[in-house]
Amino acid sequence: MPKVGIVMGSISDLEVVKKTIRVLKEFDIEVEVRVLSAHRTPHEAAEYARTAEERGLKAIIAAAGKAAHLPGVLAAYTVLPVIGLPVKSSTMDGLDSLLSIVQMPAGIPVATVAVNGSENAALLAVHILAVAYPHLAERLKEYRKAMAQRVYQQDSKLQEEVSGI
Amino acid sequence: MPKVGIVMGSISDLEVVKKTIRVLKEFDIEVEVRVLSAHRTPHEAAEYARTAEERGLKAIIAAAGKAAHLPGVLAAYTVLPVIGLPVKSSTMDGLDSLLSIVQMPAGIPVATVAVNGSENAALLAVHILAVAYPHLAERLKEYRKAMAQRVYQQDSKLQEEVSGI
Amino acid sequence: MPKVGIVMGSISDLEVVKKTIRVLKEFDIEVEVRVLSAHRTPHEAAEYARTAEERGLKAIIAAAGKAAHLPGVLAAYTVLPVIGLPVKSSTMDGLDSLLSIVQMPAGIPVATVAVNGSENAALLAVHILAVAYPHLAERLKEYRKAMAQRVYQQDSKLQEEVSGI
Amino acid sequence: MPKVGIVMGSISDLEVVKKTIRVLKEFDIEVEVRVLSAHRTPHEAAEYARTAEERGLKAIIAAAGKAAHLPGVLAAYTVLPVIGLPVKSSTMDGLDSLLSIVQMPAGIPVATVAVNGSENAALLAVHILAVAYPHLAERLKEYRKAMAQRVYQQDSKLQEEVSGI
Amino acid sequence: MPKVGIVMGSISDLEVVKKTIRVLKEFDIEVEVRVLSAHRTPHEAAEYARTAEERGLKAIIAAAGKAAHLPGVLAAYTVLPVIGLPVKSSTMDGLDSLLSIVQMPAGIPVATVAVNGSENAALLAVHILAVAYPHLAERLKEYRKAMAQRVYQQDSKLQEEVSGI
Amino acid sequence: MPKVGIVMGSISDLEVVKKTIRVLKEFDIEVEVRVLSAHRTPHEAAEYARTAEERGLKAIIAAAGKAAHLPGVLAAYTVLPVIGLPVKSSTMDGLDSLLSIVQMPAGIPVATVAVNGSENAALLAVHILAVAYPHLAERLKEYRKAMAQRVYQQDSKLQEEVSGI
Amino acid sequence: MPKVGIVMGSISDLEVVKKTIRVLKEFDIEVEVRVLSAHRTPHEAAEYARTAEERGLKAIIAAAGKAAHLPGVLAAYTVLPVIGLPVKSSTMDGLDSLLSIVQMPAGIPVATVAVNGSENAALLAVHILAVAYPHLAERLKEYRKAMAQRVYQQDSKLQEEVSGI
Amino acid sequence: MPKVGIVMGSISDLEVVKKTIRVLKEFDIEVEVRVLSAHRTPHEAAEYARTAEERGLKAIIAAAGKAAHLPGVLAAYTVLPVIGLPVKSSTMDGLDSLLSIVQMPAGIPVATVAVNGSENAALLAVHILAVAYPHLAERLKEYRKAMAQRVYQQDSKLQEEVSGI
Repeated sequence: MPKVGIVMGSISDLEVVKKTIRVLKEFDIEVEVRVLSAHRTPHEAAEYARTAEERGLKAIIAAAGKAAHLPGVLAAYTVLPVIGLPVKSSTMDGLDSLLSIVQMPAGIPVATVAVNGSENAALLAVHILAVAYPHLAERLKEYRKAMAQRVYQQDSKLQEEVSGI
Repeated sequence: MPKVGIVMGSISDLEVVKKTIRVLKEFDIEVEVRVLSAHRTPHEAAEYARTAEERGLKAIIAAAGKAAHLPGVLAAYTVLPVIGLPVKSSTMDGLDSLLSIVQMPAGIPVATVAVNGSENAALLAVHILAVAYPHLAERLKEYRKAMAQRVYQQDSKLQEEVSGI
Repeated sequence: MPKVGIVMGSISDLEVVKKTIRVLKEFDIEVEVRVLSAHRTPHEAAEYARTAEERGLKAIIAAAGKAAHLPGVLAAYTVLPVIGLPVKSSTMDGLDSLLSIVQMPAGIPVATVAVNGSENAALLAVHILAVAYPHLAERLKEYRKAMAQRVYQQDSKLQEEVSGI
Repeated sequence: MPKVGIVMGSISDLEVVKKTIRVLKEFDIEVEVRVLSAHRTPHEAAEYARTAEERGLKAIIAAAGKAAHLPGVLAAYTVLPVIGLPVKSSTMDGLDSLLSIVQMPAGIPVATVAVNGSENAALLAVHILAVAYPHLAERLKEYRKAMAQRVYQQDSKLQEEVSGI
Repeated sequence: MPKVGIVMGSISDLEVVKKTIRVLKEFDIEVEVRVLSAHRTPHEAAEYARTAEERGLKAIIAAAGKAAHLPGVLAAYTVLPVIGLPVKSSTMDGLDSLLSIVQMPAGIPVATVAVNGSENAALLAVHILAVAYPHLAERLKEYRKAMAQRVYQQDSKLQEEVSGI
Repeated sequence: MPKVGIVMGSISDLEVVKKTIRVLKEFDIEVEVRVLSAHRTPHEAAEYARTAEERGLKAIIAAAGKAAHLPGVLAAYTVLPVIGLPVKSSTMDGLDSLLSIVQMPAGIPVATVAVNGSENAALLAVHILAVAYPHLAERLKEYRKAMAQRVYQQDSKLQEEVSGI
Repeated sequence: MPKVGIVMGSISDLEVVKKTIRVLKEFDIEVEVRVLSAHRTPHEAAEYARTAEERGLKAIIAAAGKAAHLPGVLAAYTVLPVIGLPVKSSTMDGLDSLLSIVQMPAGIPVATVAVNGSENAALLAVHILAVAYPHLAERLKEYRKAMAQRVYQQDSKLQEEVSGI
Repeated sequence: MPKVGIVMGSISDLEVVKKTIRVLKEFDIEVEVRVLSAHRTPHEAAEYARTAEERGLKAIIAAAGKAAHLPGVLAAYTVLPVIGLPVKSSTMDGLDSLLSIVQMPAGIPVATVAVNGSENAALLAVHILAVAYPHLAERLKEYRKAMAQRVYQQDSKLQEEVSGI
């Protein structure tokens, strides 16, 4: 089974990242979760990314807020796909995190998901891994069926609620 | 060699997408380029995505502007990784395209790159494919060395220019 | 009496959509309320819109948040007028929903109302139906008189409150 | 055949509105085109909307820029459906026009289309009229087929262009 | 003593407008406070502005939120100076109200103050009236001295607080 | 006749301010036009505002771009009404100028007009002066009639143009 | 030891500024903390900056919200480095404060930190002082080591937490 | 004389940075100008910052656009003051660059100037150096006098131009 690295800039991001971890575990993907700061521990962050491939990681998810450099900085030190998860902070409604992550200059892409899009960060990793691990494609199809089921259930439940409006 | 689908919402997006095609060709990745509209040809767009896996595609890059639904709509019909390339239109400076692509609700992620980030859309596809095709990881490392070389050359050239300022 | 479809991307949107339902019922317009996701149940959403006309619907109201593709996706499969109701989510203050709905590319319009503008989504449907059902125009004129009455009452009540400031 | 009013706040908006007129004419819909200002000719604007129904109009399209009050002001004086077409001015990239039109308070909706979305303003009017005039629904289906054809043609043309990239 | 009209689009704006009323009363300026809606009671709003001068008003303060047309609509019917007070609503952080009020097209200006700037709306009215009523200029100078005094007091109080940090 | 001060932060703002001067001259209002910088000549700017009243000015129009402090700084030194005219600079589309001028903290209001709203800055000054100088109210009514005439003319001209579309 | 001035526009900013004071005290830097308003006490603010150098200050930190002119106004009266700390107010999420501070026109720079970036305002002052006071550079290196240690501790703590997810 | 490092992310930024170089040379400050990319040459960028102090630099100015990580990344490797100069790119009007630079998380500040604020980036460096090099404070005072002179000249020139308006 492939292994995915999850890095956050501060332990305060764990609240958002929890869902990411849970979804990956649901797909039986091994996770390596770290707090590493692009600014406060730049050597460790660089070293983490530089050695990620040899440690067996297949992708990295990096969550960060404000001037969120972590995903881009990690991407600069590895050719593994890096998924950027912008975290909303107390100001700017996440727009700063989003632009700091998605607007990467040419050469070093970061695969960006929605602000606080923790579930999608995990799912995107699975979609990426599924290119190499076909059984994950099957698992994703099942996951989607389950999602569709939940929509059908919401739809059923809705009919009752609407009658009372 | 893996094959990548490139879909644009209108032929007017080709100006931006050209660089994406060139970079993928540079990596000897076969491309299947299409104009498909999420709104004007919804059946064809859905069908394209639904059969993408069986046609041998390994990833899809979707470029679109304004209320850019194409990447999300394609992603809804396939478990292949979908890369969203927001195209700047004549109003809103690309913010509408970016938010319409990156802010996908939970369940169906789109790997979003910068507004008009055509080179990075291609490179992100290569990073993703490199998980399954290790020789591409090597190619990416060479590509990065070449990029670094160009930075060194710019730096050398700069020294001359600065002396004349 | 005409029938209007109300579709939301998730049951969590019901809080906003309730007012839409109530206003339509106030006009004795039959509603067909559904949870359908443009991304998690794309076939059902497409099918819903494709068959809407033959099911007797005269207009569709679609409520969605974030990268809100639902109104545009439904509009692609029907020539019924589609009203887009952007729902504010936990980030971006509804700007992502608004731009994803209103900035539709040429060819497939969505009649967009304000972020969380649930009453206006319903009223817009009534205004549209009133073109074909003249009695609704009369009902709207009464509705407006009642609104004006409420403004007059607020104005009266205000005079008391102001004297105490 | 139904008649649609098209109102613009200044003759400088005609550049954007031309396409709206052309599309309505393409559907053989009679248009009544006026320059009326919500601020410089408020009486005439109010009177125009107040008498629109008795003049036989079935819908009104109002185009305006900056603090674009025209659509909302017209909507206040008529129960005809009012379509708001935000026009981009020299500053703010149309965001001021868009928010001034779409964010209407509860009670008086304006059916808003994209900034400079002149074709969609016309098409939305046709979709609305098609509720009452079924032959217009047929015309819209043909219009959509023609649009799809143009996408197919773009797609064919693209294949040649791509081979040369 | 001059009289100032204060108009709000809904009684829910009173929370913000209270401070405006208080400040004007502090300057012994008579106020005429009304709820009038540019959209739900357009005739009354127009009539209010049209007759404002003959009723003895010298300026009008208009508070409104969202697509805030009230100040501009009143200004269209009177040559009295109109002060626009944008009210923050539940979405868009007041940006919609601000742009809808301040971005008035050429010809009909609205003197705009900050979002929820209720004190400044009142003070601006006093500054304007002071051109005609010189004693108000003196009152404003005293008001400013009192404001400066409060800053000095805050500064003194701060010194104690800082010592404990 | 009253005199109005017009201050700009840089002579490059004259392009925008010209129209302001012309409109005031059209109303036979004497203007005193100056380049004064809140940051580069702070003493002169403060002194200008401090002595404005005794020099016979009745209002001040201040035009500035970027972090546009000039209107607020002048307002801090005088009780004359200060009109802020935000000038669009090469970045941020005038949003920085607008927010720097309109979002004044409580106590010192600036009457803000639209970005590059040079005509309205002048007209707002006339509306303000008209409180003290009733003949200006008459002049404004004539000005508005002339504006309405121009709208009628545009409307007539439009009818010809439309027939050719 | 050098002395740093900390100025805030209102005592309500103290909540944000407290952290700034604490960090400077942690570096044994003497602080002179004042409430001074660019608009309500302009003379005192100007005088404060004008005499800052002779009072022995080496840098000034100015915190302000909304149309935050204080940092720019102080900078106009001194050649000491001025650090601008934008304070988030109840509207606009701090964007108004940020743009009003950072977008200073050419000639008078303000060293701007993040919205509510109180710790960084203090640290930036220390970085600046460290150019002249080399022992502060050593202290900063220790401070950074301590920050890195806290990241390591968060990382350790995270491992436990993750195992329970 | 102190030495200042100027780093840009791409030689295309030189157009903006030229003015920065010129102003520093005007103050007889030695500059070391480099092209270094936070993403394409991360080792060199890190090494550059890590050794900046021992190479005798007293401050670093870093110019970058889009997701502009360069200033923050350099700041992470040195305790020298780092000045961030956001460069406007072809989309987003510089907002992405600005937020990516100014919104630095707590611990590692970047002294940010206006978008394309090349002159102010240089001047801020001089203000910072002036703390340690008092003669630069004198030079700055002269520079400011010259700026004031240019404002006076603009003011004189304006009087002629105004008479012709």
